[in-house]
Amino acid sequence: MSDYTPPLKDIKFLLDHITPIEELAKLEAYQAIDAESVEGVIEEFGRLMSDVWAPTNAVGDAEGSHVEGDEVITATGFKEAYAAYAEAGWGAVPFDEAYGGGGFPWLVGIVLQELLNSANMALAMAPLLTQGAIDAILHHGSEEQKEKYLLKMVSGEWTGSMNLTEPDAGSDVGALRTKAVKQDDGSYKITGQKIFITFGEHSFTPNIVHLVLARTPDAPAGTKGISCFIVPKFLVGDDGSLGERNDVHIVSVEHKMGIKGSPTCVLAYGDNSDGATGYLIGEENAGMRYMFTMMNNARLGVGVEGLGLAQRAYEHALAYTRERKQGFAPGAARGEKSFIIEHPDVRRQLLTMKAYTESMRLLAYKVAEQIDVARHGADEHVRTAAQEMVDLLIPLTKSYCTDVAETVTSIGISLHGGMGFIEETGAAQFYRDCKITQIYEGTNGIQAMDLVGRKLPMRAGGVHQDQISRMKATVEELAGASDELAVIHHELVAAVESLEEAANWLLAEGLADPVQALSAASPFQRLYATTVAGWLMAVQALVAKRQVDAGAADADVAAVKLVTARFFAEHLLPQVHGLVAPVKAGKGDLFALTADQF
Amino acid sequence: MSDYTPPLKDIKFLLDHITPIEELAKLEAYQAIDAESVEGVIEEFGRLMSDVWAPTNAVGDAEGSHVEGDEVITATGFKEAYAAYAEAGWGAVPFDEAYGGGGFPWLVGIVLQELLNSANMALAMAPLLTQGAIDAILHHGSEEQKEKYLLKMVSGEWTGSMNLTEPDAGSDVGALRTKAVKQDDGSYKITGQKIFITFGEHSFTPNIVHLVLARTPDAPAGTKGISCFIVPKFLVGDDGSLGERNDVHIVSVEHKMGIKGSPTCVLAYGDNSDGATGYLIGEENAGMRYMFTMMNNARLGVGVEGLGLAQRAYEHALAYTRERKQGFAPGAARGEKSFIIEHPDVRRQLLTMKAYTESMRLLAYKVAEQIDVARHGADEHVRTAAQEMVDLLIPLTKSYCTDVAETVTSIGISLHGGMGFIEETGAAQFYRDCKITQIYEGTNGIQAMDLVGRKLPMRAGGVHQDQISRMKATVEELAGASDELAVIHHELVAAVESLEEAANWLLAEGLADPVQALSAASPFQRLYATTVAGWLMAVQALVAKRQVDAGAADADVAAVKLVTARFFAEHLLPQVHGLVAPVKAGKGDLFALTADQF
Repeated sequence: MSDYTPPLKDIKFLLDHITPIEELAKLEAYQAIDAESVEGVIEEFGRLMSDVWAPTNAVGDAEGSHVEGDEVITATGFKEAYAAYAEAGWGAVPFDEAYGGGGFPWLVGIVLQELLNSANMALAMAPLLTQGAIDAILHHGSEEQKEKYLLKMVSGEWTGSMNLTEPDAGSDVGALRTKAVKQDDGSYKITGQKIFITFGEHSFTPNIVHLVLARTPDAPAGTKGISCFIVPKFLVGDDGSLGERNDVHIVSVEHKMGIKGSPTCVLAYGDNSDGATGYLIGEENAGMRYMFTMMNNARLGVGVEGLGLAQRAYEHALAYTRERKQGFAPGAARGEKSFIIEHPDVRRQLLTMKAYTESMRLLAYKVAEQIDVARHGADEHVRTAAQEMVDLLIPLTKSYCTDVAETVTSIGISLHGGMGFIEETGAAQFYRDCKITQIYEGTNGIQAMDLVGRKLPMRAGGVHQDQISRMKATVEELAGASDELAVIHHELVAAVESLEEAANWLLAEGLADPVQALSAASPFQRLYATTVAGWLMAVQALVAKRQVDAGAADADVAAVKLVTARFFAEHLLPQVHGLVAPVKAGKGDLFALTADQF
Repeated sequence: MSDYTPPLKDIKFLLDHITPIEELAKLEAYQAIDAESVEGVIEEFGRLMSDVWAPTNAVGDAEGSHVEGDEVITATGFKEAYAAYAEAGWGAVPFDEAYGGGGFPWLVGIVLQELLNSANMALAMAPLLTQGAIDAILHHGSEEQKEKYLLKMVSGEWTGSMNLTEPDAGSDVGALRTKAVKQDDGSYKITGQKIFITFGEHSFTPNIVHLVLARTPDAPAGTKGISCFIVPKFLVGDDGSLGERNDVHIVSVEHKMGIKGSPTCVLAYGDNSDGATGYLIGEENAGMRYMFTMMNNARLGVGVEGLGLAQRAYEHALAYTRERKQGFAPGAARGEKSFIIEHPDVRRQLLTMKAYTESMRLLAYKVAEQIDVARHGADEHVRTAAQEMVDLLIPLTKSYCTDVAETVTSIGISLHGGMGFIEETGAAQFYRDCKITQIYEGTNGIQAMDLVGRKLPMRAGGVHQDQISRMKATVEELAGASDELAVIHHELVAAVESLEEAANWLLAEGLADPVQALSAASPFQRLYATTVAGWLMAVQALVAKRQVDAGAADADVAAVKLVTARFFAEHLLPQVHGLVAPVKAGKGDLFALTADQF
């Protein structure tokens, strides 16, 4: 009954050749793993996603969630699907064995995230946000906090939630006003209200560990005065037993355009007392710094939401184009209606979906691999280089995967014709779910500011130059390759040139005048990300050609990848040339009008 | 309480300078009108839209419509809003006075349509579809039919509906199977089922005139065997009185992603009898030909839906960016939070919305003006030239205005941050409503096939060459103009070059091999439309410069238009350069994969 089949062959191709597990397995930290066991893990997980999770996706969209008294009622099947996931220990896979984790690379965790998001993005947010809370406690919590909270969160027995946003503090986190007052016993009393808290309340698990940003009375203004607290739904005794209900309560859930199955909560702290009990993580006023440690993972996670939605939308549309007959395609037997997949413009749209989705996967997996190397690489130099690559690619990956997912899910609707607009068809949900990914965890505009303001200037442009060098090395390889790859070579050369032209302008102009950089940030981000995506498609094409020529076991998969790589090079990559002028326009006319003149 | 203010200044600028009413008023058919009276009409209509229609928009989205027994219940306020529109005779404005119309140019009708769609696109579909039915009867009905049905449809006393689609006959209309059997009295018995019938049932008016495509028993297969029938909900006596209820009944309404206020009906013909009574329009088997006469108007109408949504989404987002404070914009006083409209990337997004929306209006109004000239131009030569321009620009306008509206309404959500994803904010509705406009009235893929298959080859490319010549004339004018227009000149030259490169390839390759043309159709369409939009923005800039320099009464409006035109030229027009390679890729790799390999 499931309409979702995990793209195991595509994933395997990447884990064999592009971000090879065998290479990661050479690192000290991952000596216990090997490609075969990873493949087994992914296959088994894929069955759970396909059989149990995927069928709950449309249900969640139709039923949403609602508040009854002090509880949030989630959609039919959600609690059971979460339980199946948690009981099997899936949440633990990419975490440190010291805290009950599976000790797998983050890359494997990202593969699982792709599958989670394809199966049911709304429900996937419960583990995803838990992961954020785990990250914060893991890196900044005390041993006692790790003992008390972390183990149960890694195991999935409890979930976590992230409480950052307030009505006047969204993109500007520093403006938050929730208060935290220290008590004699070292705990804090938290009062205030938080919005947009994903899975801030539910009945999946007996406890929820809220991570809350708040301000102590004498804290400095802005981001420098933010502290981070653990506020458990039920207080936890030293023996791990659940005690008193904490004064954090659900106010309402939002009525959203998508991810309706995921309760987006307004939570009130201390409405019925002098405050909810919270426990400081690390030091006071260091909260924003702690948030930054988890930011890369969280942003990559949102990019992977885009990837998961795109993959599912593609499969959904593909199935329809293979079974729907309409009109006569060129070359069809006389009087014989054609499956719509045989129409040229339908093929163009399908290949657009497919090539874009492959490029998103390449980008996301590459970043995940580099996160693993940055953590566990053999020497300092390797680790630093990997971390730099991660830092550069994170805004590109978050924005590209979510912006492109909008395009892919939109095409998915269109390929169904008028039926695509009817909710029962299922195509519309992916599109509605997708839109939020461009906005949360830092809007794509904020990603662009990060790119031009922090990432491009790293090492005076040196980190960027390293990326250019990597791409030029691929260009070199392509130059000597076969005619089949000529168009890829040609288009990649041109794209890298456009990127360099834009980047050089930015490095010269933008650093002198930050308004220039901020004005050019978004088109530059799209230009840069598309070029990197095109580069990874080219890298994949080189491997694919080798596999085909060698008649390797995966030559059939490789043959398809040659086609999508050429399609990407000819149809999608050339967009970059239209983005150079917008970058170099800079602040130009942006401030030519007063606010009233708009 | 309304959050919609008709953009009267923008409209007036176009009707004064770009598609001047004064010029149309010189034509015999429009001698009774003048610019001032048109302005008055638009202002008055704007008040109705702003005060009465606009507030029903969100209500319609929330309540939708549903079936109770044999009736469709529409949202609160819809019936009254329709009545206010019909009673004032607004539907009659652009129709021939001989049939009770106002005798205004179609251009004025299109202006009203923009306002209708901004105010409430879902409700606007009732008059829009009526217009389609009017067109068919007007051009192909008998005098008796005009007397009996047309007058009341023009006056708005009755609505019309268009019944084309069946489950296996969507884009492929020729596949329809609804039957029509001639009776002794000359009427027909209609049996079958139709889907996607907008306002196919409602209680706004005492009668509904369904236009139904069906097949007589001996009709040839495909589009050559389709006949067109009038099937009134209530039969109409010779004295105009309503008689027997016809056997056409509501089966269900669809559950859609957007335009929820508009009932999308499944209608059954003849389920309770030997058939619903229908009256042939014109001749048997000529139905498709008749449909073609109304196609241009209908497709332009859908483009104007995109325009209307974009304008409202822009106003909605603009209001938010002017009142929402967040973060510190460059140059803000220390410690003073900024309105988000002062952030560079927000301005870039607002200007993108504004410039795109202006370009859509220019395109739609230009086509409407040419429709008027094609009908009523002083001599045959002028009429033919105008009709050719309409024919070429229709697929461009329909696809561009609806594709770009998706971008504009998407940005509208993003500018609200996380709040944009919450339905109460209102931004999401425009985006959800918009998606269908790319699909119905011929998907944008079908528009592209029309462009490369029928329009580009007109007069062996001569009609296309005329458009190139018009654009080059503007380039010439710009060459001698001031520095302020230099960037527009530069970018328009480059865009026209890209268009010519793509068009010349298509004219050479595509005509020899239709699969090449079909494969390249969609990117070519976007390339062409964007260039034409850039041209019209340039034409507008030339006028604006003149008005500013002359210190004319509308110099303030003109000054803003200079900015949006430059923004369009630098930020949006350069996209065309990324579309040349996809066109010239042609069928390339589109058929390199079998359906199974996808």
